[in-house]
Parts: sequence; structure tokens; C-alpha cells
Amino acid sequence: MNLKIAVLPGDGIGPEVILQAKKALYAIGEVYNHEFVFEEALMGAIAIDKTGNPLPEQTLNLCLNTDAVLFGAIGDPKYDNNPNAKVRPEQGLLRLRKELGLFANIRPIKPYKALIDASPLKREIIDGADFTIFRELTGGAYFGAKTLNEEGTHASDLCEYSEEEITRIAHLAFKSAQNRRKKLTMVDKANVLETSRLWRKVVQKVSVSYPDVALDFLFVDNAAMQLILNPKQFDVILTENLFGDILSDEASVITGSIGLLASASLGEKNALFEPIHGSYPQAKGKNIANPIASILSAAMLLEHFGLFTEANVIYKAVEKAIEYKVVTVDLKPDSKFGTNEVGEFVSNFI
Amino acid sequence: MNLKIAVLPGDGIGPEVILQAKKALYAIGEVYNHEFVFEEALMGAIAIDKTGNPLPEQTLNLCLNTDAVLFGAIGDPKYDNNPNAKVRPEQGLLRLRKELGLFANIRPIKPYKALIDASPLKREIIDGADFTIFRELTGGAYFGAKTLNEEGTHASDLCEYSEEEITRIAHLAFKSAQNRRKKLTMVDKANVLETSRLWRKVVQKVSVSYPDVALDFLFVDNAAMQLILNPKQFDVILTENLFGDILSDEASVITGSIGLLASASLGEKNALFEPIHGSYPQAKGKNIANPIASILSAAMLLEHFGLFTEANVIYKAVEKAIEYKVVTVDLKPDSKFGTNEVGEFVSNFI
Ligand SMILES: CC(C)[C@H](C(=O)O)[C@@H](O)C(=O)O
Ligand SMILES: CC(C)[C@H](C(=O)O)[C@@H](O)C(=O)O
Repeated sequence: MNLKIAVLPGDGIGPEVILQAKKALYAIGEVYNHEFVFEEALMGAIAIDKTGNPLPEQTLNLCLNTDAVLFGAIGDPKYDNNPNAKVRPEQGLLRLRKELGLFANIRPIKPYKALIDASPLKREIIDGADFTIFRELTGGAYFGAKTLNEEGTHASDLCEYSEEEITRIAHLAFKSAQNRRKKLTMVDKANVLETSRLWRKVVQKVSVSYPDVALDFLFVDNAAMQLILNPKQFDVILTENLFGDILSDEASVITGSIGLLASASLGEKNALFEPIHGSYPQAKGKNIANPIASILSAAMLLEHFGLFTEANVIYKAVEKAIEYKVVTVDLKPDSKFGTNEVGEFVSNFI
Repeated sequence: MNLKIAVLPGDGIGPEVILQAKKALYAIGEVYNHEFVFEEALMGAIAIDKTGNPLPEQTLNLCLNTDAVLFGAIGDPKYDNNPNAKVRPEQGLLRLRKELGLFANIRPIKPYKALIDASPLKREIIDGADFTIFRELTGGAYFGAKTLNEEGTHASDLCEYSEEEITRIAHLAFKSAQNRRKKLTMVDKANVLETSRLWRKVVQKVSVSYPDVALDFLFVDNAAMQLILNPKQFDVILTENLFGDILSDEASVITGSIGLLASASLGEKNALFEPIHGSYPQAKGKNIANPIASILSAAMLLEHFGLFTEANVIYKAVEKAIEYKVVTVDLKPDSKFGTNEVGEFVSNFI
């Protein structure tokens, strides 16, 4: 197979971890005779520094005209505490999601047996947990109208959803549930929010086409609790953008480290793969960032193109690294292995 | 002291647990020579059933003209899955918060030593955790304009905040931090939301008056993770309404049961005290609901009126109940004690 892949390393630890993902893909390409052509482009704070734009047109055009995007992370503290910054790295990511139409963000959560004890949660709580979060990614308060009055004393964010936006991701989530344990939990705040009531109504409507999937509903406050009390109850979780942002980061604690979690963002035509950990600027350039989330994002990319054998080889290699404790300090505080060493181990194993 | 207390038992387990809180207050009144006059009123689903209104005017008037409100819980599943219900129990609670001007909801989180092992989190993670969440309670998406188009295919919720709304709760939170470990963590999503950027700006401004308090900021997704990874890092958490709803329920897992957590909701003139657990309809009438959260809400009420000795007696009594394992099944699956027995133990101890 020939694949053209846009690579956006971005900020912070993005470039270091994405390098390891590329190495894994190169190794797969050699062994299985695929040609992966990578083209790098600027995005995030680094793109602002170099071009004034967090998502330069050139980057966007590249992404629109490739088979897939491999994305690192964006964000820089110099923008976070400056409420007056006019341009922000995050705007680039949000615009990219919107322009590529990446409406579904998919985050699988499943602890590795060898890492069960790395979690702050007790073994009996998490052993056997295995679920996937479907987060809507191009709607809600992320993209609604924002206002700030002239005096800077009053602000607003609008959260909007349409039936169509809900329907398309609901179908993806139900289909995924059909291939799993046939349970879908919709998370919302329907006792307070109008958009949540629309979600509930539309998801109930879509559910009619999936009679083999059991559907239930949880309020987001309760869901935030249940994820920790009893994560094994979940199979597929479906939710809106902001709730999905919060719950999927929270759910990462089940696996022991956010440095292990990959995600796929899918649209009608485009697909983007990224680790969920963010730019982690404190670790930048120190060779301590965990590359596994990025490497697993590359595996999700392969799966997306039907290359299941190849993806499985990566999953196996990552399992081996974990089993042999070739992991970074987030998973083993006294580890002598860094980003590079873990990445090397994985691509050598392929 | 003479106190007139409006009692709103509400729905589900509300009446059972509030009864135990009243018993504790009666006992305190006898021993310390206070006169607590209770007046009950309808609210929630039960009020809809009886009057068509989740917050009858009579109830509201009573609450406006008492020293404090002791509130149980509201909510009934028959409204949750009916997106077309025009009247909902929650509307009563939201209106009550608004009319009483209860802008600050305060939720202390601190695990009991004797219950450390009841938490899904490992002992070393939670032992020593002790923090308080200040949740803004009368603004944000809870109270902004809501729309649903005629075809029922498009919905919106508006999240709004003004400098004034943020300033008043920020002062309360900073003052609390001054009396504690002098650390305040503001939780927001300033990399995406305009309202969050306003929160950040205003809180920075208020912080100037509290130079002895260390201020830091966390994005809400990260906060949802940090609460579980390392809850000991927090002292006072300040956040907006919906984030506070999610994070405080999540934080309840630290203590092992949401049935242990009380809250105070304060305004300029009024104060309301309630367990955070909600109506838990499945347990209604079974004598299995944990009354401790309600009893502790009564203790917070006493503290609010400066009755610290009296409040401490309740705290001690609850500790004893926990130490002697006179607790409900949420804390000890094979417990033979019910709501009544736990309540009796506490009031007998006073
Ligand atoms: C960086 C930020 C805008 C982003 C989001 O909130 O979507 C991130 O937290 C994520 O989850 O991908
Ligand atoms: C019942 C519901 C409207 C309420 C809220 O979301 O505020 C509850 O969850 C709470 O936290 O008091």
C-alpha cells in the first residue's frame, strides 16, 4: 500500500514522540512492503512563532490532500496565562478539526496487564476494564459564538448542536458497540442542558436501528464518578465535545499513564491520529516523554486503512516493551530508558 | 440561639436522610440549649405531583424568610428520559438557588482514616488528601438562554459570566485558602472558552488582595486527571458551575462514598445545606441510604451560624459511627445497619 501521511509534530514533546511513531511506521513499511511517504508541516505555537498563524494555509492544504494526518501536540504556557493573546496555538488545532471535518474522536481505554499496578486505582477496580470513548469533535462550546464585551467584564460561549451532528457520530458509536460487547452509554446533562436533551432524543432515535445494542444514559457528573468507581461497566461511551474532553482525560488514569493513550479523529474524507497527552512543555527535549501514545496512534492509522496485521505487530511490540519494562519514567520512576530507547525497542521488534 | 430552618426533603431518599439530620439537630438543640424550629415544604418531583410546580411559591417564600434551608434531594427518572417534559424537578432546585442568590457551593473533601480502604483509589494516593471545592452556583450554562428550534432539530445553551459574578466567589475562595494551606487552584478551559479566559483574568485581579495565597491554574481536562492521580496537591479549588458539578462528584470517590459528602450553598443573605448525592430513587424507602451526608450538612449549617462546638460534636459522632462500623451498605457491603440505625447512633452520641 502507498500512503501519503502529513506529519505535524507541533509543540513541546510533540516532535520527539512523533519521531518514534514515524520510526515504527518505517519499520512496518520495510517488513510489509508498504510505501509511507511523510511530509512534515508547521502547526501550533511553533507555527505562530514562524508564520504568525497556528495553522498556516500550506499546512491545511497538505492535510486536505493526504491520506492521513499524524499529529503530535500543541500548546505553550506563554499563551495560557495571557487572556489577551489574540492568536493561540489551540485555534490551529480546532480549525484543523473543523476544516477536515473530523467529527468523531475515538479513544480506546484498556489497561495493560503488566501495568495494572501503575494505576492510582486498585487492581480489582481496573483489571478487565475495556472501553472506548466516542467524543464529538467539531461542535458544542468549542465552536459556538464567543463574546467579550468592550469593557472586558462580560463573556459568553454558545454550545450548539444539530440533529445531523449527533446522528452521524451516534451511528459510528453504535456500530462500534455492535463489534464489541453491545452496550452504549450516552453521557450528557439532560436534566439541565437543552443540547443534552437533543442528544438524548436523537440517540434514542438512532438506537432503533441497532436493536442488539443496549443503550443507557448517565449524567456527566455521575459518569465522572462511575468511571473511577466501576470502569468495567462501560463498553462504548458516547458524548459531546467538552464532556468527552474531560472524561477521556479522566479515564486515562485507569491505564496508569496518559502517555499510553492514542486517539483517532475521523471525518467523511479525512483522518487524523494523535496521542491524547498534549504538549507537556516541562518535558520538552529531555528524552523523558513517553512515545507509546504516538506509536499507538500510528497503529490506529494502520487499522484505519485495513492493515490489521501490521497494526497488531505494533500492539505486540508495545506490549513487549511494557513487559520487559523498557518504559519511560512516567511508568517506572527509576527507569533508565528515555523516549528514544523505548522507540528504538519498538521499531527493532517489528 | 433561635434558628428557623426550612426543611425541603424532596424526592427519592431525600426524606429518609433529612429525617436523620433533623434528629441530630434536635439532639444538639437539647444539649446546648438552642431552639431550632423546622418548617417543612414541598419541592422537586413530589411538588410537581402535588402542585404542578417543582418550587411552589409557598416553598420559595418560606425559604426567603428563614435563617437557613436544609435540603434533601430532587430528581425522578420519569423525567430524565422524557426530553419533552415541560416541567422538571431540577428546575425547582435551579430556581431556588437563583432566587436565594446562592452563588457559592462549597464542598469539602477529606477521607476518614477508618474508611481509607473503602475508596477505589490506593491508600497512598488518598491518605492525607484534604481540599475544598468552591463551585459557582448561579451562573454559566445552567442559567443562560436555551433554544430549541420548532422542528426540534437544533438546540443551544449559552454559558455567560460577568466579572462581578466571578469576583464575589473568588473572594470567598481566597479567604478560605487563607485559613487553610494557602493554595488556590483555578480550574477552567481558558485555551478554548471565552468565559474561562474572563475567569482567569478576574481571578488574577482578585488574587492581588491575597498575596499570601499561591494561585495556580489547571485546564479542566487535566484537573479531572489530577484529582485522581494526586489529590493531595489540592487545597482550595475554584471553578465555574458545570465544571464544579462534574469535578465535585468525581472527587467524591476519594472518600469512598458520595454518601459522605455535604455541601453548603451561600449567598449574601441566604444559606442552604444539602448532601451532594442526589435522590438515588432505587434506594428509596429501603432504609439503606447513607444519612451521613445529610447529617454533615446539618453540621455545616451549625458552623455557618458560628456554632463550632456543636458542629464538632456532630463531626465526632460521625467519626465514631464510622470507627464502630455503624454504617450503611455503601461503606460495608454486609452491614446490618440502615439509614435509621446510623442516624440513631449519631444522635444518641450527641
Ligand atoms: C488542546 C485542546 C484544545 C484539546 C481539546 O480540548 O480538545 C485537547 O485537550 C484535546 O483533548 O485534544
Ligand atoms: C440535580 C442537578 C440539577 C444538580 C446540578 O447539576 O447542579 C446536582 O447534580 C448537584 O450537583 O447539585
